[in-house]
Amino acid sequence: MRLWGGRFSGDSDPRAADFTRSIEIDRELAADDISGSIVHVRGLGRAGLLTNDEVERLVAGLEELGRDVEAGQIEWDPALEDVHLNLEAALGERIGPLAGKLHTGRSRNDQVATDLRLWTRRAIDRLDAAILDFERALVDLAEREVETVMPGTTHIQPAQPVLFAHHLLAYVEMAERDRGRLADARRRLNLSPLGSGALAGAGYPLDREATARELGFDGVTANSLDAVGDRDFVVEALAAIALGMAHLSRLAEEITWWSNPAFGFVRVAEGFSTGSSMMPNKRNPDPAELVRGRTARVIAALNAVLGLLKGLPLGYQRDLQEDKPPLFGAVAAYEGSLAVMTGIVATLSVDRARMRNAATAGHTTATAVADHLVRRGVAFRVAHQVVGSLVANAEEECIELAALADEAIVRALEASEDETARRLATEPGIGDDVRGVADLQSALSAADVVGGTAPRRVEASIAEAKRRLSETD
Amino acid sequence: MRLWGGRFSGDSDPRAADFTRSIEIDRELAADDISGSIVHVRGLGRAGLLTNDEVERLVAGLEELGRDVEAGQIEWDPALEDVHLNLEAALGERIGPLAGKLHTGRSRNDQVATDLRLWTRRAIDRLDAAILDFERALVDLAEREVETVMPGTTHIQPAQPVLFAHHLLAYVEMAERDRGRLADARRRLNLSPLGSGALAGAGYPLDREATARELGFDGVTANSLDAVGDRDFVVEALAAIALGMAHLSRLAEEITWWSNPAFGFVRVAEGFSTGSSMMPNKRNPDPAELVRGRTARVIAALNAVLGLLKGLPLGYQRDLQEDKPPLFGAVAAYEGSLAVMTGIVATLSVDRARMRNAATAGHTTATAVADHLVRRGVAFRVAHQVVGSLVANAEEECIELAALADEAIVRALEASEDETARRLATEPGIGDDVRGVADLQSALSAADVVGGTAPRRVEASIAEAKRRLSETD
Amino acid sequence: MRLWGGRFSGDSDPRAADFTRSIEIDRELAADDISGSIVHVRGLGRAGLLTNDEVERLVAGLEELGRDVEAGQIEWDPALEDVHLNLEAALGERIGPLAGKLHTGRSRNDQVATDLRLWTRRAIDRLDAAILDFERALVDLAEREVETVMPGTTHIQPAQPVLFAHHLLAYVEMAERDRGRLADARRRLNLSPLGSGALAGAGYPLDREATARELGFDGVTANSLDAVGDRDFVVEALAAIALGMAHLSRLAEEITWWSNPAFGFVRVAEGFSTGSSMMPNKRNPDPAELVRGRTARVIAALNAVLGLLKGLPLGYQRDLQEDKPPLFGAVAAYEGSLAVMTGIVATLSVDRARMRNAATAGHTTATAVADHLVRRGVAFRVAHQVVGSLVANAEEECIELAALADEAIVRALEASEDETARRLATEPGIGDDVRGVADLQSALSAADVVGGTAPRRVEASIAEAKRRLSETD
Amino acid sequence: MRLWGGRFSGDSDPRAADFTRSIEIDRELAADDISGSIVHVRGLGRAGLLTNDEVERLVAGLEELGRDVEAGQIEWDPALEDVHLNLEAALGERIGPLAGKLHTGRSRNDQVATDLRLWTRRAIDRLDAAILDFERALVDLAEREVETVMPGTTHIQPAQPVLFAHHLLAYVEMAERDRGRLADARRRLNLSPLGSGALAGAGYPLDREATARELGFDGVTANSLDAVGDRDFVVEALAAIALGMAHLSRLAEEITWWSNPAFGFVRVAEGFSTGSSMMPNKRNPDPAELVRGRTARVIAALNAVLGLLKGLPLGYQRDLQEDKPPLFGAVAAYEGSLAVMTGIVATLSVDRARMRNAATAGHTTATAVADHLVRRGVAFRVAHQVVGSLVANAEEECIELAALADEAIVRALEASEDETARRLATEPGIGDDVRGVADLQSALSAADVVGGTAPRRVEASIAEAKRRLSETD
Repeated sequence: MRLWGGRFSGDSDPRAADFTRSIEIDRELAADDISGSIVHVRGLGRAGLLTNDEVERLVAGLEELGRDVEAGQIEWDPALEDVHLNLEAALGERIGPLAGKLHTGRSRNDQVATDLRLWTRRAIDRLDAAILDFERALVDLAEREVETVMPGTTHIQPAQPVLFAHHLLAYVEMAERDRGRLADARRRLNLSPLGSGALAGAGYPLDREATARELGFDGVTANSLDAVGDRDFVVEALAAIALGMAHLSRLAEEITWWSNPAFGFVRVAEGFSTGSSMMPNKRNPDPAELVRGRTARVIAALNAVLGLLKGLPLGYQRDLQEDKPPLFGAVAAYEGSLAVMTGIVATLSVDRARMRNAATAGHTTATAVADHLVRRGVAFRVAHQVVGSLVANAEEECIELAALADEAIVRALEASEDETARRLATEPGIGDDVRGVADLQSALSAADVVGGTAPRRVEASIAEAKRRLSETD
Repeated sequence: MRLWGGRFSGDSDPRAADFTRSIEIDRELAADDISGSIVHVRGLGRAGLLTNDEVERLVAGLEELGRDVEAGQIEWDPALEDVHLNLEAALGERIGPLAGKLHTGRSRNDQVATDLRLWTRRAIDRLDAAILDFERALVDLAEREVETVMPGTTHIQPAQPVLFAHHLLAYVEMAERDRGRLADARRRLNLSPLGSGALAGAGYPLDREATARELGFDGVTANSLDAVGDRDFVVEALAAIALGMAHLSRLAEEITWWSNPAFGFVRVAEGFSTGSSMMPNKRNPDPAELVRGRTARVIAALNAVLGLLKGLPLGYQRDLQEDKPPLFGAVAAYEGSLAVMTGIVATLSVDRARMRNAATAGHTTATAVADHLVRRGVAFRVAHQVVGSLVANAEEECIELAALADEAIVRALEASEDETARRLATEPGIGDDVRGVADLQSALSAADVVGGTAPRRVEASIAEAKRRLSETD
Repeated sequence: MRLWGGRFSGDSDPRAADFTRSIEIDRELAADDISGSIVHVRGLGRAGLLTNDEVERLVAGLEELGRDVEAGQIEWDPALEDVHLNLEAALGERIGPLAGKLHTGRSRNDQVATDLRLWTRRAIDRLDAAILDFERALVDLAEREVETVMPGTTHIQPAQPVLFAHHLLAYVEMAERDRGRLADARRRLNLSPLGSGALAGAGYPLDREATARELGFDGVTANSLDAVGDRDFVVEALAAIALGMAHLSRLAEEITWWSNPAFGFVRVAEGFSTGSSMMPNKRNPDPAELVRGRTARVIAALNAVLGLLKGLPLGYQRDLQEDKPPLFGAVAAYEGSLAVMTGIVATLSVDRARMRNAATAGHTTATAVADHLVRRGVAFRVAHQVVGSLVANAEEECIELAALADEAIVRALEASEDETARRLATEPGIGDDVRGVADLQSALSAADVVGGTAPRRVEASIAEAKRRLSETD
Repeated sequence: MRLWGGRFSGDSDPRAADFTRSIEIDRELAADDISGSIVHVRGLGRAGLLTNDEVERLVAGLEELGRDVEAGQIEWDPALEDVHLNLEAALGERIGPLAGKLHTGRSRNDQVATDLRLWTRRAIDRLDAAILDFERALVDLAEREVETVMPGTTHIQPAQPVLFAHHLLAYVEMAERDRGRLADARRRLNLSPLGSGALAGAGYPLDREATARELGFDGVTANSLDAVGDRDFVVEALAAIALGMAHLSRLAEEITWWSNPAFGFVRVAEGFSTGSSMMPNKRNPDPAELVRGRTARVIAALNAVLGLLKGLPLGYQRDLQEDKPPLFGAVAAYEGSLAVMTGIVATLSVDRARMRNAATAGHTTATAVADHLVRRGVAFRVAHQVVGSLVANAEEECIELAALADEAIVRALEASEDETARRLATEPGIGDDVRGVADLQSALSAADVVGGTAPRRVEASIAEAKRRLSETD
């Protein structure tokens, strides 16, 4: 039985039926479909299109169906195409021909638009909670490692020393923006399309605001043609998710490299590592690698839905059926990724000594030295040149900046075309002066601006993050 | 002269210099770079790192530079790599070695992050105004064509009659969401990264909030490592733009097909049409086609930046240089597309008769007939079956639903398994009753819900849109 | 039991196990995995690493396993992660500890690379056959409709008359290129990675060429590090599939619009149409719409795998697990799309009269008229101008070009600045001369070059295609 | 003057003109456009549509134009839209009204299709040569470093020792496949569309094969409708380029990490490094980073063109104008990337000691030890378990596998449930036996299969590559 078959004499070609069937995917919407139907039935009652008794019997039938769906006791019939027709048929089996009144004043077009908004709203709420968990793990680790120094990196090369906690808190910032984007998407999607019919608006005087309220929506969509073909909320959620995944992939990348013995900065817990079927020595950070890999799929999911919408005439086109696999897949990927990254961070072993040693390598305090010369009156570009030659010298001799001899320092200043620099060269104690700002702790403390890595700034950030996170418990 | 060359002894390989140079692209940032520099100089003065006199001379030099940039009187030197080094060198030519103090407490990393936020903010403001213009054109046309009926379409087939104005207003809804997304992106990006240094925070006690205020930012970024590598605002703007382009591409697609003589619904003005170099008969809606085509490029631009960020370690990596071509290209494409679509809509000729005729074809009032049977007590699924067979009958006889004979109507009702339907078949006047709801105007009026296409609803929507748009003048 | 757990003391975290498990996806590889294992076992025997008796027992066990897999009688255990470990464990249940020797000289890295090549090779062979079926349906329809004229279109506007058969044969050209690309991909992938081990090459003197031959490969891969991380064949197959889908989507787009009553060129058979749950009048070409929509997903699948590979260090990284969902999904989408498009074409009803009528509209013979003036000595640019004004005139009067009065033609020629044109204006019979080339059949016949739409050219193309297709039966 | 303006009375709207103009981009096609025009003119002569004198004057004018284009002495006029109309107008300035005959029997549709194929063919030839240069640099370095051992990596963790030369040769394999794909694309594109007209075939008896031969094509396209809308060759070239870029990005990623002092495996030459405007200590492998970043843009370029083609009706649509920016950009990115990667490889400093030291860390010989136990009769799964516990033991004691005491080895064998393993435990000299296979050189030599990293295999591969490359000089 095809519920749309009135004017059709023949059967679907099996190739067409196989190709267009969506029940394997859209049954994910069953719970939301039933919620929507219950509210719709009540609306039909209010509009006088169903008697009180009919409403009660339909609602009772739908509630029973909802319990069966939750218990996994529905046999989905591929011949019934999609979740909507499956549920309507299942309702018919339970309550008889009255089920045929369920679809009054409703099309699958506004129905699926409603279902998908409800589903996406729930997904966003779950994701928001998962991001908060991730933030908590980051802040906890930052607090535990509040004194750990590491080489801050640009161009994948050591740049300046930073606190490891500062590095972790950068991810908290990203996570907060991710939450903000999801919240904006949620706010914008939270309007009910129910009552838009197939495209022109329902043909009965339905109280759309009332059903919207019952479904937890903030209001109703304002144009029926727009409402049935609008998948902006899918794109917007996917864009927020893709960027969130990109953030996780950055940390995942770092963790995979930091786990390599060349760095040895961290060790991923066994529970988040795997071995090799062939190489007995392996301990691989597989979940982190997969987060990175899955990010590619999620970015492509966003691409898929935008590609779908391009050039699509208004109203519902069947192309839109393709919105669900990318959305469902991306939500699952992000939820899973947040879960494993939270677990990895929460159980990460940190090798403080190796981090600190790496920070002293690479002459990461060179900028601090140059900044000091500026404070001594040298123009920045001159200071940059002078310290550049100090670094070249230190590298040649395979020593740290803080270990340069007086004469090396004097020579570098003297060689400058700048008068102030050359005058500094003649100052007694200039060697000690320069070396005194070339150690890690001095360099850290110098970055004492809002958002800088100076310890007191980082501690304040941790405290602030903890306060904020405690409020969302 | 390379401003970063202190520790380097050799020259860049020409292949590397060619490959990494960005001045052809990033000179687009010149005005914003100078604004940022002026504010930064004042901040250095407040921090005691420059004397008042130095501040004045630097600011005067920068202001002069800004005027030259605006007048197109700067020679960009490819050997100077990028816009930042070009401008610093140009400043040096104007004010001498003092220019070397400009880069104190600043890195190109926080500098370019600041520039790009300022640029994007201005771009969003221009786009917002352009979207409003587009909305005005849509609403004006809707008002002019407030009584024009067209076949509402699903699956690219006629579905139900709708007002053309209703169709146009659907695009106003999309445009408003597009504005909302851009506004959210603007709000989230409007924090100053200046003072974040290369990655660790500036090494001087700069008052970041003060410079932020001077640049019109709402506050400062909270983590230096995040700030220099954060391109969320680029992704977020691109996501909003890509979706906005997708919306325009939908209208562009419709207009190209409606212009085909098979439809003949509209005629694009000559000013927005082109001819063929070979076929003298052609009148092509090229700008609309290009809007559709350019949408593919903008979707890809979003894809490019997300692909760029995936797996990128924190801090600034040179990969980020690739954020600009996609962003600049997408903004230009969207601005151009909004301009031509606004022009096309504003000058569109509408063939009301052809639209109406097409609406009567395709039996678009079938749903209204089924809904009427429901109001007469028939269950919807039964009514759907009955009307389905009426449609099959009308199609066979090549007539409209409203032209079906009494007996055809009676026969369809009698053939139903449903008792109520069969009882209706025996009612006198049932033929007139059914035909009476099968005309376009009745069907339109029946869609009388919020967001529906009933004329009084559409008129209210137009009035509401006009009111809103007049406020943003 | 984890086969890689020798050095591990704890269990996997459930979040990590859930996230990294691939058995739901990669069990698709089971048959190929078993084929590969059988051949590998024989190779171990030849290398003296297994006794003849061991080889026989292992092969018998694997063959039994293969039958069980084919019969769907394997219980896939999620705790065993993937298809490889599941099958090895299932083998152990059947033949005992001897199963532990199966993985000698093999890693999951070269194993999965082999499996996936075998799978892709089979997929390409199925796709090739399906494309040929599609071509046959196109050529059959072209032959049936060999005289049907339609408006050839550029810019979605009528341009010049073409034979409908010519239009269909354009898709045969695309399909042949699609086959060519798949064949190239097949040829390039058909090398055996087996024996590459985890990344360095197997640690035993295995005869890789022999196992390659047994698996139907043309040779062996030449570098073990490349072989385990090479997914070029996935990208190459996906690129060919994405382009093939793009081709199908073009025809799908055309069919959806041609089905709209405004065109009424074709009618999709009921078996490839669906109705609406709400609108009894609808007959929708859903499968064609879905082909268009699914194309977006397949393009994104290609994007996903390229995004995966970007920046991935050599050797196997777990990211590569993400190669399968895009590949499997794209192959299924393309197979399904070819099947429905073949069915749609084979059962398509064509309305020859409506096609021909539409071809006369739009002044599609204007180019033929201009070409004729050129043959009468007028420069093409002049002829283009003259005919352009004829078209403007005909449009104003709402008549065809072939119905223009003598004086209109003379006036247009006289108005030219070109001497030859003005001379023609004075020729007696010039009106008949011009009108004589302005009918559809003359215009068609004029396009008499290789690849042109002249009937004799199109007939030759049909004959050639039939001959070629009969050879591939 | 608009060459298509015959039927138009008004001007283009400036917004439309700005939006649709392509001269800034497509002037890149000028040389190919002129080549195509010269050949077309000769064809018109052969077809009797031009006199010999006209042919000569047109060809002379076009040749002069070609020289001016090459010398950069053409003023491109934005008002003339595109390169075709610009060149036709420029020709008119040189030779007068005769230029108006150039467009006889040709449309911009077959013209631009021809131009773009010629351009792409030349681009492919340049890329092929650039890939060969890259291969030569790889092979040269492999030969110089033929004895250098490094830790082969999977999951970004040390796995097994490999020769650095083996690693480099993996990229030669990729490069050869990239050449193969480009060659296939070139072969498939090398058919002439000239003579296809706007879409239906030229209206004159042109000898398409003759012009095809003169332009170096292997033949002519077989269907005019297909030919004018076919951009398969763009997609195919972009797919090959995107994959080629992905390969380069893998090496670029490795080089950026290997340059980090934590690894210190390599040092990029100064000529391919840059410094920091703020941090005097920096030496950044910028070109390599940009190769990685630019890969994202090239992948997106492929995405853009596929997105463009999706759902596009046959014939030429203006959307196709958008094929050029992605193609031109991707070719430039790939050429530049090949050049810098070739330079980086050719000038790379390698720290052999650090590579070898890293290879001994990570117990990379564990697999070789397990393989040895297999050769001693232990089942592989058992050997894997035993060596797994040896690794755990070595790690605990912070020693290499080769340094394990006799009793540790015996204990691990005894602890096995396997009889053969336990029997080995009792063998005298088993400690020496195991330690004897646990050194790097033994492990390398064990991988003695085709494609393995055993030194003699790698040397043979180098010799083979050199032989092959010398043939292509």
